[in-house]
Amino acid sequence: MTQQPLIGIIMGSTSDLEKMKPAAETLTDFGVPWEMRVISAHRTPDLAVQYARSARERGLAVIIGGAGGAAHLPGVIAALTTLPVIGVPIKSKTLDGLDSLLSIVQMPRGIPVATVGIDNAKNAALLAVRMLSVSRPDLAEKLAAFHQKMARDIEAIELAEMM
Amino acid sequence: MTQQPLIGIIMGSTSDLEKMKPAAETLTDFGVPWEMRVISAHRTPDLAVQYARSARERGLAVIIGGAGGAAHLPGVIAALTTLPVIGVPIKSKTLDGLDSLLSIVQMPRGIPVATVGIDNAKNAALLAVRMLSVSRPDLAEKLAAFHQKMARDIEAIELAEMM
Amino acid sequence: MTQQPLIGIIMGSTSDLEKMKPAAETLTDFGVPWEMRVISAHRTPDLAVQYARSARERGLAVIIGGAGGAAHLPGVIAALTTLPVIGVPIKSKTLDGLDSLLSIVQMPRGIPVATVGIDNAKNAALLAVRMLSVSRPDLAEKLAAFHQKMARDIEAIELAEMM
Amino acid sequence: MTQQPLIGIIMGSTSDLEKMKPAAETLTDFGVPWEMRVISAHRTPDLAVQYARSARERGLAVIIGGAGGAAHLPGVIAALTTLPVIGVPIKSKTLDGLDSLLSIVQMPRGIPVATVGIDNAKNAALLAVRMLSVSRPDLAEKLAAFHQKMARDIEAIELAEMM
Amino acid sequence: MTQQPLIGIIMGSTSDLEKMKPAAETLTDFGVPWEMRVISAHRTPDLAVQYARSARERGLAVIIGGAGGAAHLPGVIAALTTLPVIGVPIKSKTLDGLDSLLSIVQMPRGIPVATVGIDNAKNAALLAVRMLSVSRPDLAEKLAAFHQKMARDIEAIELAEMM
Amino acid sequence: MTQQPLIGIIMGSTSDLEKMKPAAETLTDFGVPWEMRVISAHRTPDLAVQYARSARERGLAVIIGGAGGAAHLPGVIAALTTLPVIGVPIKSKTLDGLDSLLSIVQMPRGIPVATVGIDNAKNAALLAVRMLSVSRPDLAEKLAAFHQKMARDIEAIELAEMM
Amino acid sequence: MTQQPLIGIIMGSTSDLEKMKPAAETLTDFGVPWEMRVISAHRTPDLAVQYARSARERGLAVIIGGAGGAAHLPGVIAALTTLPVIGVPIKSKTLDGLDSLLSIVQMPRGIPVATVGIDNAKNAALLAVRMLSVSRPDLAEKLAAFHQKMARDIEAIELAEMM
Amino acid sequence: MTQQPLIGIIMGSTSDLEKMKPAAETLTDFGVPWEMRVISAHRTPDLAVQYARSARERGLAVIIGGAGGAAHLPGVIAALTTLPVIGVPIKSKTLDGLDSLLSIVQMPRGIPVATVGIDNAKNAALLAVRMLSVSRPDLAEKLAAFHQKMARDIEAIELAEMM
Repeated sequence: MTQQPLIGIIMGSTSDLEKMKPAAETLTDFGVPWEMRVISAHRTPDLAVQYARSARERGLAVIIGGAGGAAHLPGVIAALTTLPVIGVPIKSKTLDGLDSLLSIVQMPRGIPVATVGIDNAKNAALLAVRMLSVSRPDLAEKLAAFHQKMARDIEAIELAEMM
Repeated sequence: MTQQPLIGIIMGSTSDLEKMKPAAETLTDFGVPWEMRVISAHRTPDLAVQYARSARERGLAVIIGGAGGAAHLPGVIAALTTLPVIGVPIKSKTLDGLDSLLSIVQMPRGIPVATVGIDNAKNAALLAVRMLSVSRPDLAEKLAAFHQKMARDIEAIELAEMM
Repeated sequence: MTQQPLIGIIMGSTSDLEKMKPAAETLTDFGVPWEMRVISAHRTPDLAVQYARSARERGLAVIIGGAGGAAHLPGVIAALTTLPVIGVPIKSKTLDGLDSLLSIVQMPRGIPVATVGIDNAKNAALLAVRMLSVSRPDLAEKLAAFHQKMARDIEAIELAEMM
Repeated sequence: MTQQPLIGIIMGSTSDLEKMKPAAETLTDFGVPWEMRVISAHRTPDLAVQYARSARERGLAVIIGGAGGAAHLPGVIAALTTLPVIGVPIKSKTLDGLDSLLSIVQMPRGIPVATVGIDNAKNAALLAVRMLSVSRPDLAEKLAAFHQKMARDIEAIELAEMM
Repeated sequence: MTQQPLIGIIMGSTSDLEKMKPAAETLTDFGVPWEMRVISAHRTPDLAVQYARSARERGLAVIIGGAGGAAHLPGVIAALTTLPVIGVPIKSKTLDGLDSLLSIVQMPRGIPVATVGIDNAKNAALLAVRMLSVSRPDLAEKLAAFHQKMARDIEAIELAEMM
Repeated sequence: MTQQPLIGIIMGSTSDLEKMKPAAETLTDFGVPWEMRVISAHRTPDLAVQYARSARERGLAVIIGGAGGAAHLPGVIAALTTLPVIGVPIKSKTLDGLDSLLSIVQMPRGIPVATVGIDNAKNAALLAVRMLSVSRPDLAEKLAAFHQKMARDIEAIELAEMM
Repeated sequence: MTQQPLIGIIMGSTSDLEKMKPAAETLTDFGVPWEMRVISAHRTPDLAVQYARSARERGLAVIIGGAGGAAHLPGVIAALTTLPVIGVPIKSKTLDGLDSLLSIVQMPRGIPVATVGIDNAKNAALLAVRMLSVSRPDLAEKLAAFHQKMARDIEAIELAEMM
Repeated sequence: MTQQPLIGIIMGSTSDLEKMKPAAETLTDFGVPWEMRVISAHRTPDLAVQYARSARERGLAVIIGGAGGAAHLPGVIAALTTLPVIGVPIKSKTLDGLDSLLSIVQMPRGIPVATVGIDNAKNAALLAVRMLSVSRPDLAEKLAAFHQKMARDIEAIELAEMM
């Protein structure tokens, strides 16, 4: 996207891309510009420091970080910026996502990570939009319309025809 | 507090008060006005609807909800407002907080709850301040100062004297 | 079915339909009329309120709700009606159904949900029939016959022929 | 109680009595007569058979069974009667109630147990009252009043005075 | 087998047959006669009582029971006989066998079940042979030979050829 | 005891003694002679080998091993003898006994351990007596009497007097 | 490899070979000679004793042991040598690797096993190289180069081209 | 200690000191010099970088890091040094140490952490001594003596006197 990005979407590995894509797509639906990068808390620690430390001055408002296993990325980023950081636990090959979830959500007092459900990057994007909506009524309206559409879509279902 | 509250702190039961208090204290430290109420998704469903539906127009920017067990409060509130909602899983008498955590964090696509660690109401408040800081540089500065103080406090520790 | 439904079967999403169908089929086997709808505690909160509040006067005797993840539907419905509500935890893509189970069964004191096994919609229907049988001897007889048939079917198995 | 009991409350051991008492107290509050016995699926198997097989003809409408560990009592009873059986998982000294919960709720297709939360005997009683209310409008009214009182009690809380 | 069976192998459902077969095959390898039946603690409670109560006088020495989910079969049988009962937790479609394991192993004081690993019917058979070997030196010798063969088979592996 | 011991009770540490004592007491009640030792699979590996290898020729019929955490003792002993080995998972300071249970019960194909419930040494003894009863009718009779006493004790309970 | 091996890679079964191979490949990449064998703590206890007891004098510096289920191999080896032992929990067919992990990591005070992530044999090799690097600057340099390459590889990713 | 430290012991908070002390005490027993500091991956990220990056040149051979909850410290340090890093999961107030364990052990491919049991700092020290012993025969001898003493201490136990 050519606009100055407001939301930074980062992930620990390209193997997380498929699961993190819905975050970008949802932000695009809401007209919120984003950027996306692979940054590993463990394999590119310097890049992580540099990305997090410069985020606010580069104009980012929220950072969304997806990671699996001993998923330190969102917490490490949150330690290095004062922007809100949203963590997406990515289910890895063992333990069904429980390790990812606990490594992200159980942060010590002082450094919070806003954790969403396992593999639920779409909700990370929606949460970022909610955060922006605090000072942007246009996004509050778009969210309200989004809620109404979700309700209408469900109310229109004709189960009888599906059985 | 006499100022118009920006953050609504709600909890399912008075038994959660002790664990939710640090949220209020932290917000006060940052000079962010708050209100606090007991609202149960199950025992006062009408109150929950009314509270969530009116939150944005009453001037709230973020809602923090604490609940334990089958902890539906934050998710139910998030379904009824487009403000960001932060969930605090409260450890109850059995299952060591795992039920509270999973009931709050595993929200379906469409309705996110920003979940923090079990019993970690302080981090919920800090996360709310981070959200506000997106459009309020004064809070960004206070957060930066808070981070510096945390670091200094740790660096000043003399373990040798403690052993 | 053209009869006035006695049992309401609801689910959070059409993706739950395949797993909830056995509830309807079992009720049909017992000659108990039912209705089935998609209602989401989070995406259609108004519909949930309206459905639950009107259930008893519309003639429903029992509500069966299936949901996965942070599965709030049965509990939210149970808060809004005094009819017995049966919850079916639906296994979702992560955590093997444990999140669904805990979100449904661990309800706070005051609002019970009758929880059955993960993905076990058939048992939800049988439980509903047992509830009705308290005041309907015809259903008690059908249940007794059903138990006898289950026993006979197992007793007739010739393992020797299967090996 | 001198009235013909409608609800049978049973438990695997006298050590469960303290946790099962709230079931009896709640039923008394609703004016529903009950009986209470210690019956073990493992230590008194004959008694379990005899109790379950005779329950309906003795006038019982619902059986509530509490048990811990490999908690077989509610399931074994449910196999021997067609009355609705409610299971209360009792937390034992290890595994924080998870073993009790899974042993009760994960019943095979054919024999349901209506499971409530761990150590939540009060909800078992409320669920039994809901079941009876299907054919008894007086209990439906009492439940409605109970819900209203719960809501009023919470709405009357003055948190400001508690901090 | 035409010999008087010493080991009874039972299971809750024909769907467990594939997983229980190795028990029979292993017993055959050791020359220990067995019988195999489908018996459900919940769907054929009378058959379970009759089978367990008559087991010792019919000449059985050990009973092996496989079951999944809320797996009550081995415990219920153990309550009705004084023979040693071996439980095989069968992994079912959810919870990865944890429910089966806990429902079998966590028996209350007084009624033990000798539990083996999830889906490990072969070990149930080997355990039964060990039990018989206490009074049968011929089986002790066969077990010793079996151990030696296991060791030799592993020691003969040429990993280099497998890479 | 002065008689030749039939049952060897071993444990990984003296801290397990309190939890393993009921095994000895129960065996004494049944008149079955026992011996008790501290043997660690990790801290006294040679002693473990020597104990297990000589057990059968020294006249032992069954070995009961209690251990906590990464509880290898029963499995290591079972690898070194063909006698039946019973494992008692001891709850340690973390993880509520789950680590002990899984380390004992999930043995690989070929080497079974008869696992009883967490901290349930009494059941280990009763299981050992059941094993002996296969060839000793006197113990079968004592077990039958024990079962009858358990049932009578429960049937004699007067709950009314306890409330 | 023809050089005197420094690292011994052992596993409980040939079925673990596929998962343990990356350890050998990574060591080869670092020019560290290794040997690989199948040794079972349970099926070849004598071989385990002999292997561990002779390891240091045969010139081994580190032993890597992979095992699944009740995974005793690394702990048993660690009890029989004073070399550092690295444990790789292998995910088996049930419980998603949790049993393997707990059986390896929760060793009693006195006998440590250096545990890496489930199925993560590559990290076991890297950890062994780190251990060797304490006294071998050439390996420290290779590790530093490896870290730099990992960082460069990630920094070179062009996500835009992947979407 | 006045000697140049070989082992760095770090922890996320002074509240971990009590649990990490045994590491220092054990190292002292083996005559291995150590240093101890509070360093938080989240609250003092700069200090963490500086400590890890300078560790090898300052003469450290091994770093032991203890942390609880979303325990990122050992992994973050391991990303910034090529020395072996040992992680000690500290049990925190909820989830019984499982979160700490998974956050430390489940590191991504490329950056290993040698994880020991929950709250088992003594084993971390013993593991560090084992690592040093690869190139220091004096420590290998001390470890051998330590093993012999452990065995003698257990063999000297007289259980009979303790009952």
